[in-house]
Amino acid sequence: MVNYPGGIRKSPAVKFDNAQSHPKSSSKTSPINFAGRGMSFEADINATNDYYLTHGLAVVHKKPTPVQIVHVEYPKRSRAKITEAYFREASTTDYSGVYKGHYLDFEAKETKQKLSFPLKNFHPHQIEHMKAVLAQGAIAFVLLHFSLLDETYYFPASNLAAFYDVHKGLKSLPISQIRSEGQLISNQQIPRIPYLDIINQQLGLS
Amino acid sequence: MVNYPGGIRKSPAVKFDNAQSHPKSSSKTSPINFAGRGMSFEADINATNDYYLTHGLAVVHKKPTPVQIVHVEYPKRSRAKITEAYFREASTTDYSGVYKGHYLDFEAKETKQKLSFPLKNFHPHQIEHMKAVLAQGAIAFVLLHFSLLDETYYFPASNLAAFYDVHKGLKSLPISQIRSEGQLISNQQIPRIPYLDIINQQLGLS
Repeated sequence: MVNYPGGIRKSPAVKFDNAQSHPKSSSKTSPINFAGRGMSFEADINATNDYYLTHGLAVVHKKPTPVQIVHVEYPKRSRAKITEAYFREASTTDYSGVYKGHYLDFEAKETKQKLSFPLKNFHPHQIEHMKAVLAQGAIAFVLLHFSLLDETYYFPASNLAAFYDVHKGLKSLPISQIRSEGQLISNQQIPRIPYLDIINQQLGLS
Repeated sequence: MVNYPGGIRKSPAVKFDNAQSHPKSSSKTSPINFAGRGMSFEADINATNDYYLTHGLAVVHKKPTPVQIVHVEYPKRSRAKITEAYFREASTTDYSGVYKGHYLDFEAKETKQKLSFPLKNFHPHQIEHMKAVLAQGAIAFVLLHFSLLDETYYFPASNLAAFYDVHKGLKSLPISQIRSEGQLISNQQIPRIPYLDIINQQLGLS
């Protein structure tokens, strides 16, 4: 559920602080920034969504991390403090929103592999969720980022679900298939991951 | 996010799982259950969404409660434990999903008032969010529950935002206006709060 951009684990505060996580840790853990942009993949997506929101182009938000709260203290003259809680597995995808009336739903994942994308990154119930929203006419997809190649692909959720079902989620999705059935998203400065361009193509708007 | 069908509440974890405050205190403060259903309003909505999901009618989820995580412990042979965290204010509405390709977005609130609905229940950024999704063609609304009347209304987000702006969020929305600009949702056994019926009317589907 929680993405750990670049597999980076730093201070929990930053990491889980917000749906919009901050990429400042990347320079600490790795002196070489393969992405060449100094931002994590998740931060790139959040920046893109922020751009779309502030420019009135789309409203897409990352859902908060699901947390099971066990104990809360209510100190006097202070705000409620959660003192025991656990991460829960997400039952849906991370991102959803609206674009020109259409419901958008996607998950964003990255890998350090170069030849294929491991499907263990996706939980079975996330695949089920994708199928459910597809059945309701959603525009559903995944953004797959190959960090060492610095390539990000738009891949339809329908294709992902089909592949997942055939291989019971055990096999990795070959990059050749991602390239043939998906679309490379050209990285930009602003917005960083312009996935709406792909959706525009699909909707015949560009 | 998590549905609690039947309003079952056992562990303390359940209590804070959702952003909405729970009305279960009402049974404490008053021995008479005016709603006559033994379920909280939020549980009713979650049960409704669960019904819609399992029957393939719509996919609508409640977003997880936004939590700011400050400290996490990683005990050996045990799952990560959050030991310090705080509730954050939601920047969006609680519910979103897809119905026949349409993006649905709503907030659900209840009051013990009988004559009007206090708008302090809504944060300014939630109103902003409603405007933003409306501009993208969303079906956006609020479900307003008058617990002592046992009446639930579908009220368009556009009307709510207009009233909110005029009165700067300070005034309560009179029930007369809710009745004239919104629609009463007939309570049922299953699903409990059939809000899709109203949306069908609006879409000309019923």
